[in-house]
Amino acid sequence: MERSRYSIGPVRNPQSQRAVIDAATTLLRTDGYAAFSIDAVARRAGASKPTIYRWWKHKAGLIHEIFDTESENLLSIEETGCLRDELHQLCRNLFTGWRDTASGMALRGLIAEAQQDPRALALLKDEIIPFRLQYPMRVLERAQKRGDIAPSRDLHAAARLLMTLNWHLLLTDSLEEDELLLASIDLVIDGLVVGTTTP
Amino acid sequence: MERSRYSIGPVRNPQSQRAVIDAATTLLRTDGYAAFSIDAVARRAGASKPTIYRWWKHKAGLIHEIFDTESENLLSIEETGCLRDELHQLCRNLFTGWRDTASGMALRGLIAEAQQDPRALALLKDEIIPFRLQYPMRVLERAQKRGDIAPSRDLHAAARLLMTLNWHLLLTDSLEEDELLLASIDLVIDGLVVGTTTP
Repeated sequence: MERSRYSIGPVRNPQSQRAVIDAATTLLRTDGYAAFSIDAVARRAGASKPTIYRWWKHKAGLIHEIFDTESENLLSIEETGCLRDELHQLCRNLFTGWRDTASGMALRGLIAEAQQDPRALALLKDEIIPFRLQYPMRVLERAQKRGDIAPSRDLHAAARLLMTLNWHLLLTDSLEEDELLLASIDLVIDGLVVGTTTP
Repeated sequence: MERSRYSIGPVRNPQSQRAVIDAATTLLRTDGYAAFSIDAVARRAGASKPTIYRWWKHKAGLIHEIFDTESENLLSIEETGCLRDELHQLCRNLFTGWRDTASGMALRGLIAEAQQDPRALALLKDEIIPFRLQYPMRVLERAQKRGDIAPSRDLHAAARLLMTLNWHLLLTDSLEEDELLLASIDLVIDGLVVGTTTP
């Protein structure tokens, strides 16, 4: 089910498939997106290009699989019941994960691809963004249920603002700008919370 | 002064220079960033690649000049004295400009380049972002001077949030999502304004 999102071939050879993913992950992590091509992945994995293209329709599809695999668990947080704390946790865990795994470079690559390949753009809009938005949404919905956010507030806009800020810091190689991040989260929270005091 | 940001050659031939910029602008506007290369620009302009590289050190430098030229005046607004209205104007004018000129595709291209070329990343961080941030900052500072925003509020975080949202909508080819934009601006404003009522 999950795998069919990336694959078009009927059956993959698990060993060669693993070799390709490993090679692609290492390439992204050590040399970055500039060095990333199907050619380079094929060379490093000892696989043929047609084989790779049989499993992944395009470069963005392969990067997407790496992104998903590498960013599993990055978004889990400890539920403390404090909106500010939970959002800080979410962003900090994400930034650590983006730095420590290939997921950050994979997302940078996907966004770059989306500026020139409509298939990469569709992946971003139809799969990655809706899936990722669920995490801040859950935090915000719990806070709304607790009464910390007024029922009338647009949680979707808030979740999107946080996501866009995270992406922006990633794309400008500025994940270390913690202060800006925290100030922005606080600003969004203040905008959400005001509705509860001024009806 | 302005020109030296893009050029390393001692003197440009104004006519050939214009031909290169026109060719590059047309390429970006009609075929998008996917079709954009120094090769393609040279062919269309009838110029040699060494000539182009003498004037612009790299692809990102040429795209940057197009971006600056095409986005002049996009950020001018009518001062109405209403924070919400002025920010809406700013974003709407920007979106219209990004759609109607090559500036939108130029910025998409620059951000994509920045994922693989440190020189493009430096352009973004050191020139484009600080320059662009001045526009929302001016709107916010006027509002703070009028007393619409508490003196303690972090205007920089607010300006950056708005910029990141604009970029996000551009990068995901979603400039038509006006509602999300307006909801987000309102959320940021509410976060800014709350400080004036709850000390």
